[in-house]
Amino acid sequence: MLIALDWGTSSLRAMLLDGGGAVVERRERDWGILSLPQGGFAGACAAITEGWPAVPAIACGMVGSAQGWREVPYVAAPAGIDAIASRLVRIAPAGGPVLHLVPGVSGRDAAGAPNVMRGEETQVAGAGVETGLVLLPGTHSKWVRLEGGRITGFDTFMTGELFAVLRGHSILGRAVPADGATAPLCRDAFTRGLAAARASHQGIAPLLFSTRALVLSRQIRAEESLDYLSGLLIGDELRAGLATGGRAPCTLIGSAALVERYRTGLKLFGAPAAREVEDAAASGLWRIAQAAGIGR
Amino acid sequence: MLIALDWGTSSLRAMLLDGGGAVVERRERDWGILSLPQGGFAGACAAITEGWPAVPAIACGMVGSAQGWREVPYVAAPAGIDAIASRLVRIAPAGGPVLHLVPGVSGRDAAGAPNVMRGEETQVAGAGVETGLVLLPGTHSKWVRLEGGRITGFDTFMTGELFAVLRGHSILGRAVPADGATAPLCRDAFTRGLAAARASHQGIAPLLFSTRALVLSRQIRAEESLDYLSGLLIGDELRAGLATGGRAPCTLIGSAALVERYRTGLKLFGAPAAREVEDAAASGLWRIAQAAGIGR
Repeated sequence: MLIALDWGTSSLRAMLLDGGGAVVERRERDWGILSLPQGGFAGACAAITEGWPAVPAIACGMVGSAQGWREVPYVAAPAGIDAIASRLVRIAPAGGPVLHLVPGVSGRDAAGAPNVMRGEETQVAGAGVETGLVLLPGTHSKWVRLEGGRITGFDTFMTGELFAVLRGHSILGRAVPADGATAPLCRDAFTRGLAAARASHQGIAPLLFSTRALVLSRQIRAEESLDYLSGLLIGDELRAGLATGGRAPCTLIGSAALVERYRTGLKLFGAPAAREVEDAAASGLWRIAQAAGIGR
Repeated sequence: MLIALDWGTSSLRAMLLDGGGAVVERRERDWGILSLPQGGFAGACAAITEGWPAVPAIACGMVGSAQGWREVPYVAAPAGIDAIASRLVRIAPAGGPVLHLVPGVSGRDAAGAPNVMRGEETQVAGAGVETGLVLLPGTHSKWVRLEGGRITGFDTFMTGELFAVLRGHSILGRAVPADGATAPLCRDAFTRGLAAARASHQGIAPLLFSTRALVLSRQIRAEESLDYLSGLLIGDELRAGLATGGRAPCTLIGSAALVERYRTGLKLFGAPAAREVEDAAASGLWRIAQAAGIGR
């Protein structure tokens, strides 16, 4: 058996896996590395695994960053499961399970600039892709290229964070009612944003302000304008990513709502349908632990 | 004589002009339309013009928006000084000068989408350009195309606001010391950002995160990274704007610090040197007032 922890900036998810890697029980707390409970890392780890068997634990994500429990150096790409598994960092806290921290991966983006990931390498390991592209939409979307089961390079798009800061702090979010965020997605507005981004040869820099201009000129309703903006931003990511990464079928990993938006986008861009992987973190943690000889 | 007001979201600037349009005296307060003093619009107008001769006044900017003193409808492009001057809205407040509000201009961007400006039309009028491009860098940079002295279309880039929200609210600003904003511009980092944006065929969506990755991989110092980001954002604007607007010499209107950054950028992009216009708002307000028969 194995305890698998997906420990990010804003939440801690714990899964108890049986001897075959299947999830037996799940727990989740808002104990991200920046919002720890009394007792800090050790206290959070002991509390979320309380009552579970005394088996080894493995954790991926920002818990291994400089702001985390212990900093785990990045493994340089090309990096496969074996390389990642050989660089786990072991912690043995009093009162909790022995914990192994998974390293992040450093590599190059398509333009040759340095890039880093921490947490996504584990989800990629869970996807079981030998050669191809894995797309992980989110706050910082990752487009990960694999060859022979190893991560060879990747790009990062700040799509989710851009949307959040523009909605929360720019003029584009100011016109929208506070309860607008809870409304269902307006697919027309979202698709209109996707199409505008697809049609622009100059990126979305000249398009962002149209989110407001369309409202002022009454061509879009204020409460739909953020779905248009979401379409613009995801469309810009897809335009750039597909131009760089090619148009072979990819694998999608993410929340259901986000995966649905990217699925719509990929279709509008004429890309082949993506394969989806659920529970990628649990699968990845299991595979990395197996490769490291932990929990078997 | 004429009182000329440049009344925006965050500040109110007043200029007393003599019979030839020259600035005799200047005053400035932080009485933008969202931070008015006691007495509101009328009080602000009376206070900032106190002691000046009882001559007509003219005002441009957000004071004519839906959140302003009185909403002045946009004039549709193509629009020259005469069209703008024929659509002034007159206000006669008790205890202050008779005030004429300048309308904004609505038009299309290069992609055919609707776009609006309010305040920049007056600065453009002050630039005295017959046919060509006027570039007004700022929170919402405008690239304005003119033919025969009339505004025919324009693009908006949210460059300044994007920089502000990314610095203030995203992970890109988090690593930077609080006093980093007051440091002098690091020209190397700024130019590196410009060059990266220029080299990217896919826009800056895949580049934004490199602002952080370069710090994490110790290829750029945290306190320089925001100058790199500024270079990325201005470079993306220049790349898109120059591709759309052509490479003829343009006219630059803006603050000295911003004009210097754009001048550096235009040079790096191989564009011809730009002509600069100072005090464009005062000149524009004077010319519009002349065309309307006010203050002469």
